[in-house]
Amino acid sequence: MDNDISTFVVDWGTSNFRLFGLDSKGVLVDTIEAPMGLLQIKDGKFAEALEPKLKAMASSYQHIPVLMAGMVGSASGWKEVPYVAAPASVSDVAHSAVCFELPWGARARILPGVSYRSAELYCDVMRGEEVQVFGLPLITDSDNMHIVLPGTHSKHVDIKSGAISSFSTYFTGELFALLSHYSSVKPPLPAQEIVDENAFLKGVKRTANGALLNDIFSARALRLFGELADHEVADYLSGILIGNELHSSTHRNIYLVGGEALCARYELAAKELQIETYTFSGNTCFLNGIARIIKEIENEQ
Amino acid sequence: MDNDISTFVVDWGTSNFRLFGLDSKGVLVDTIEAPMGLLQIKDGKFAEALEPKLKAMASSYQHIPVLMAGMVGSASGWKEVPYVAAPASVSDVAHSAVCFELPWGARARILPGVSYRSAELYCDVMRGEEVQVFGLPLITDSDNMHIVLPGTHSKHVDIKSGAISSFSTYFTGELFALLSHYSSVKPPLPAQEIVDENAFLKGVKRTANGALLNDIFSARALRLFGELADHEVADYLSGILIGNELHSSTHRNIYLVGGEALCARYELAAKELQIETYTFSGNTCFLNGIARIIKEIENEQ
Repeated sequence: MDNDISTFVVDWGTSNFRLFGLDSKGVLVDTIEAPMGLLQIKDGKFAEALEPKLKAMASSYQHIPVLMAGMVGSASGWKEVPYVAAPASVSDVAHSAVCFELPWGARARILPGVSYRSAELYCDVMRGEEVQVFGLPLITDSDNMHIVLPGTHSKHVDIKSGAISSFSTYFTGELFALLSHYSSVKPPLPAQEIVDENAFLKGVKRTANGALLNDIFSARALRLFGELADHEVADYLSGILIGNELHSSTHRNIYLVGGEALCARYELAAKELQIETYTFSGNTCFLNGIARIIKEIENEQ
Repeated sequence: MDNDISTFVVDWGTSNFRLFGLDSKGVLVDTIEAPMGLLQIKDGKFAEALEPKLKAMASSYQHIPVLMAGMVGSASGWKEVPYVAAPASVSDVAHSAVCFELPWGARARILPGVSYRSAELYCDVMRGEEVQVFGLPLITDSDNMHIVLPGTHSKHVDIKSGAISSFSTYFTGELFALLSHYSSVKPPLPAQEIVDENAFLKGVKRTANGALLNDIFSARALRLFGELADHEVADYLSGILIGNELHSSTHRNIYLVGGEALCARYELAAKELQIETYTFSGNTCFLNGIARIIKEIENEQ
C-alpha cells in the first residue's frame, strides 16, 4: 500500500467523493471513489470522514497536503470559499483557495467556485466544473473555445485567452430526474444506459419549436395515440430536454466534457442539430486541471 | 331539499367532483363539490360514489338523467369514451357521448374528450376543458377566438366558426408543483394566493431569451447573489413558467378561462408581454357549455 503519493486531490460533491493520489511528478497513482457526498456528512464531520480514506491510500497521510474542489467549498460544505468572479484564470482560482490545517497536521486547500454576472438578474455560479474546464486547454492546446459539461446542472462555458469569460447553467439533468420520478409523464420503463436512438431523436426533433412546456406534455399525448411505445418514453424525454438545452446555444462547435454515456446523448442531439462536437473525458480534464492548479500553487510558494 | 331539478351535471376530474342541479330551463339550482376525484374511487365503484351525492340533492334522483364530463370518460375513469377528433363542434361532442343506464334506472351520458393531430409526432388531447371552451362563444357572441385555460396542464385552444380547430397543452402547472416540492430550486416559502407582482414580473421578464432550463436554474443563482429574497422565489418561478408558456403563443389577443387567482397571474404576465386578455370565469363557461350541449342532445331526441 505504500507508494510515492505527495499530493491528495479530492473532488467532493453533493453526492459523490473521489480521492486521487498523485506522485511528485503529478502522475496519478491511486484512486478511491465513495458515495460519500456532502449530503451523507452529518454535523460537519468532514475531517472524520476524510481521514480513513487518506489512511487507506497512504500510511504517511499525516504529512501529505490535501487539495479539494467542488461543493465542499460551498455554504453547506466544509468551509465556505467565496466565488471568484469571471473572467477567471487558472491563476485566479488557484490563488483564491482557502488554506487551513487538518487535525492531523497536514495542510488543506479548498478551491473556490466561479461566479459570473452579465446584467441585473443575470448571474450564475459553478463549483467543481472550473477544474475540468481549466484542464481542457492543456489537452487541446486551444485557449478559446465553448465547452458544454452535461450533468444534473449542465454548464455552458466560454473560454477566452484561457480564462473562463462567461457561462450559463441549465437545469436539464435535474428536470429529467424530476419528470422520471414524480410526474404524470413518468416513463413506464426506466432509461437504459444505451440510448434508444430512434426515440431519443424523436424528442430532439420535436424541440425545434422552442416550446419546452408543450414538448414535455407531448410524451403523454403521444403515448395515448400509440406513437410512443412504453420503452421509448424515457429516451424521448431525454431527447426533448437535451435538444432544448442545445437549441439555446448559438455555438456551432462545442467541446463536450463529461462521462461517456451522457456525452454520447449530447453527441447524438448535436449531430441532429448540426452542431460539431469534440468529446473529452471528464476525469482526464479534471486531472489536467488539477495539474495546472498545483503548478500555480507551487509557483506562488 | 326538494326542488325542480331535471338534469344532473357532473364535472368529474382526477382530483375533484362537482355536481350541478339544473331545472327544466337550464337554471342552476344547487351545487355540491367534493374532493372525490378519480384517484379516490376504488375498484371502479363510481355508481356507489355518485348515488349518495345525487340523493342529497334531490329525493327523486332515480328519475333524473346524469350528464358527465371530464376524466370520468378516460381509460382510468368509469367508461372510456373515445376522443372526438378536431375540428370538433359542440354538436360533434354532444352526439359522441356514451349512454348507459344507472343501477337505479336513470340514464347516464359521459361526454367524450377532443383530440387533435397536426402532423406525425404532433398530437394532443383534452377531457373536460372542451365544455368550458364551448361555453365561451355563448357569452362573448364571438365564433373565432384563441382561448387559454390555465391549469395543471394549460390548454391553448383555437376556435374557428364555433368549433375547436386546434389546440396545444402546456405542462406549466405540473412543472410548478414539481419544482415547488422536489427540486433544488424549491422555494423556501410557499406561494401565496396573492401574487408578489414584483417577483413574478422579474420571472416573466427573464423569459425573453426562451431558455427555460437556464431560467429555472437562475432561481438558485439569484438567491445566492441576494438578488432574490426567500419570499420571492415561488412567484419568480411562477413568472418564469407562465411567461415561457405565453411566449410560445403568437396570439396578441387571448381569452382567459379559469379560476380567479390563476387568471390574475396570466393577466399580469400577458400585460408585460403586450398581449391583450379578456378573462371569464371557468365555472360560468362550464355551465354555458353544458347548456349548449343539453340543447344539442334535446334536438337529437
